[in-house]
Amino acid sequence: MEAKLQVGVLGFGTVGSGVIHILEEHQEKINQVTGYDIAVKSVLVRDLEKNRRYAAKEFNLTTDADDILNDPDIAVVIEVMGSITTAREHILRALKAGKHVVTANKDLIALHGDELVAVAQENHCDLFYEASVAGGIPILRTLVNALAADKIKKIMGIVNGTTNFMLTKMTTEKKSYDEVLKEAQELGFAEADPTSDVDGIDAARKMVILTRLAFGMNVKLEDVETVGIRGISPQDIAIAYQLGYKIKLVGRAEENNGTVNVNVGPVLLPRAHPLSGVNYENNAVFVTGAAVGETMFYGPGAGELPTATSVVSDVITVAKNIRLGTNGNAFSNFKYETKHTPKDQVFSKYYLRLEMDDKTGTFLKLTQIFAEAGVGFDKILQEPQDDYTATVVIITHLTSKAQLEAAVKRAQAEPELKLITNYSVVEG
Amino acid sequence: MEAKLQVGVLGFGTVGSGVIHILEEHQEKINQVTGYDIAVKSVLVRDLEKNRRYAAKEFNLTTDADDILNDPDIAVVIEVMGSITTAREHILRALKAGKHVVTANKDLIALHGDELVAVAQENHCDLFYEASVAGGIPILRTLVNALAADKIKKIMGIVNGTTNFMLTKMTTEKKSYDEVLKEAQELGFAEADPTSDVDGIDAARKMVILTRLAFGMNVKLEDVETVGIRGISPQDIAIAYQLGYKIKLVGRAEENNGTVNVNVGPVLLPRAHPLSGVNYENNAVFVTGAAVGETMFYGPGAGELPTATSVVSDVITVAKNIRLGTNGNAFSNFKYETKHTPKDQVFSKYYLRLEMDDKTGTFLKLTQIFAEAGVGFDKILQEPQDDYTATVVIITHLTSKAQLEAAVKRAQAEPELKLITNYSVVEG
Repeated sequence: MEAKLQVGVLGFGTVGSGVIHILEEHQEKINQVTGYDIAVKSVLVRDLEKNRRYAAKEFNLTTDADDILNDPDIAVVIEVMGSITTAREHILRALKAGKHVVTANKDLIALHGDELVAVAQENHCDLFYEASVAGGIPILRTLVNALAADKIKKIMGIVNGTTNFMLTKMTTEKKSYDEVLKEAQELGFAEADPTSDVDGIDAARKMVILTRLAFGMNVKLEDVETVGIRGISPQDIAIAYQLGYKIKLVGRAEENNGTVNVNVGPVLLPRAHPLSGVNYENNAVFVTGAAVGETMFYGPGAGELPTATSVVSDVITVAKNIRLGTNGNAFSNFKYETKHTPKDQVFSKYYLRLEMDDKTGTFLKLTQIFAEAGVGFDKILQEPQDDYTATVVIITHLTSKAQLEAAVKRAQAEPELKLITNYSVVEG
Repeated sequence: MEAKLQVGVLGFGTVGSGVIHILEEHQEKINQVTGYDIAVKSVLVRDLEKNRRYAAKEFNLTTDADDILNDPDIAVVIEVMGSITTAREHILRALKAGKHVVTANKDLIALHGDELVAVAQENHCDLFYEASVAGGIPILRTLVNALAADKIKKIMGIVNGTTNFMLTKMTTEKKSYDEVLKEAQELGFAEADPTSDVDGIDAARKMVILTRLAFGMNVKLEDVETVGIRGISPQDIAIAYQLGYKIKLVGRAEENNGTVNVNVGPVLLPRAHPLSGVNYENNAVFVTGAAVGETMFYGPGAGELPTATSVVSDVITVAKNIRLGTNGNAFSNFKYETKHTPKDQVFSKYYLRLEMDDKTGTFLKLTQIFAEAGVGFDKILQEPQDDYTATVVIITHLTSKAQLEAAVKRAQAEPELKLITNYSVVEG
């Protein structure tokens, strides 16, 4: 029961350190669960001289990937180096050399997941990537295994910790976008160039992966309608709160009659919705199944140890498969033809904030435009902004994306109307 | 890829109907995921004549368990009949006949899980029971697979939907215990004899199962300190709310230095705690891991289709194992010697409500008693109740169970002091 299983780790950053720590710290339990003594043999680093939290007593440090990819003793390669091109090459070489691969690389899996899965199967190797979405939350294996019996109808995810941290701070402390971005950067939650987080790109990549596993469909990143939170206004957050909502950056994937719509954007969530309670850097994925109904999986979306826990759980699955001789079976073999829901079949309520010339007839024009597009109003607030301008906030009835776009286009053509904000509203 | 896999179902109640519905309704996805056409061959019923939602077109109804247990065509037996003695006998016979078993029977698994797991292994059969805890929430496989890499430190579960429904109604609608019990009974959430729910026994059974999988320890039902919500006072719910807490019936299992303490009882949860947002008949399990930190798994704790989803997910796992030839591996092989945490090592804050003679010196006596037992006060509220009596509410500092019991025992010996309520307080 104590055979040795040697692993190589590509990358010795935050997650790499966490993986090495957990493999050592939880060795006894991991032995018992897998029947293997799992040991790190070599770690690929950029700089041999850098000071690290873990001394390389028990393993080799190398700057040459060949030392891992060509080492016949290494059965499992853990890729936690990030980036796309080099990571893809290394993983392809590892798989072709018959090594099982565990990766935390969401960018890579979102873009090249299909190719890598195919190469893994050709070479009878395992390829797992639980840590690529929502850090420590085991959402991928939950979709694939636990919810296998169900038809998933809808996924809503708070899958980017940086923007959730920023929006939580803006909501609870009434701070501005620039202030909270600076705070997030100081705490290490946001990078110097925050584009990937604040423009919703990171969340969109994770939604691509979730959609593949939940609906069996391969949606391209460019097919995910993506709006970020860059420059989001404290005024909208305050108005939404007053109306009973919190604004969160949510990724949504919804199935409708064999088609799927995937989008990322700020949405208004009722304050009593379970996702509304997901604060700061935490993540959560809310899954609606035809049979199970509403479930939610909550936890830390990033961080050294939470992410490393998911990586090591994948390594444990590889080890169990080695013991049972069952490597090389696709993680998910649920596939459907990818079809996108047409815009006249994508329904939502919307929150709109406009500035309007405060003179007789403008409001009538506004209501006419929406009535003609077939968009009804659920709630309207109008407040004077200054002597000449009024702020109008509208929450629409359920309406199709096509109808809303028609109304918005017509409103934008009117010089007296200025559309400032246009967010989706989640009910229930 | 379209081999047939025949199953027998013991019981045609709520969950049995749901299982049959899902196997039929989600047949296409289940085929794709397992490679098997999974079909119900026979269903054990008590009464052949009873009207049912699903006509038995595609399968046989029988009142004789032998028709299923002796049928060589049936590879998997699904036990959803409930009860202990008969269910145990049927499952043992099924396993000894080489049939895999999926059960939703928490009472049986809590009491006889170890015996059944051993018999399953002797006969190289699978035995799964995901539906036995928290209905549609895949918490058991999450503990065993997804969190295998981590050391679990603590589990807190809202695992009884009936009492959570009642407490939610009492909190939001300020109703009395008797009113909400009646409502729960009318809605079918509570049985005519609600003992198992309101006295915490159902929750304690689920905690026994969770403790086994999370800590590898076999705690007996009688070792779970169990307090229910029978007769719980609206006054305590109101005072707790005013202090920033919600009262929920929570099962807790906590590891401490290789020992475990498991208990069930009403606790005060901070209103911002994720478990505080779990309302009505929903369940949630909050898991703290050494590495992953805090995670929560939320969803419907009961109901025909949610529970059936978990049962069918287990059947899918059995089918995958048949295809891979890997049946008969224990669901969890993580085991530790069971050791209970001594009372002087179990720490909590406590909420105490007392009635006290309203005369000089009584409050001094109260504070002396607690000071001598080493129990410090975090918060104190005193209010006159009538001309002669005062209500005193205390929230203690973190204190050991042993210290608290000593203080409570001494307070109860004083005729001027009457301890009404004694609940644990969860922080953070």
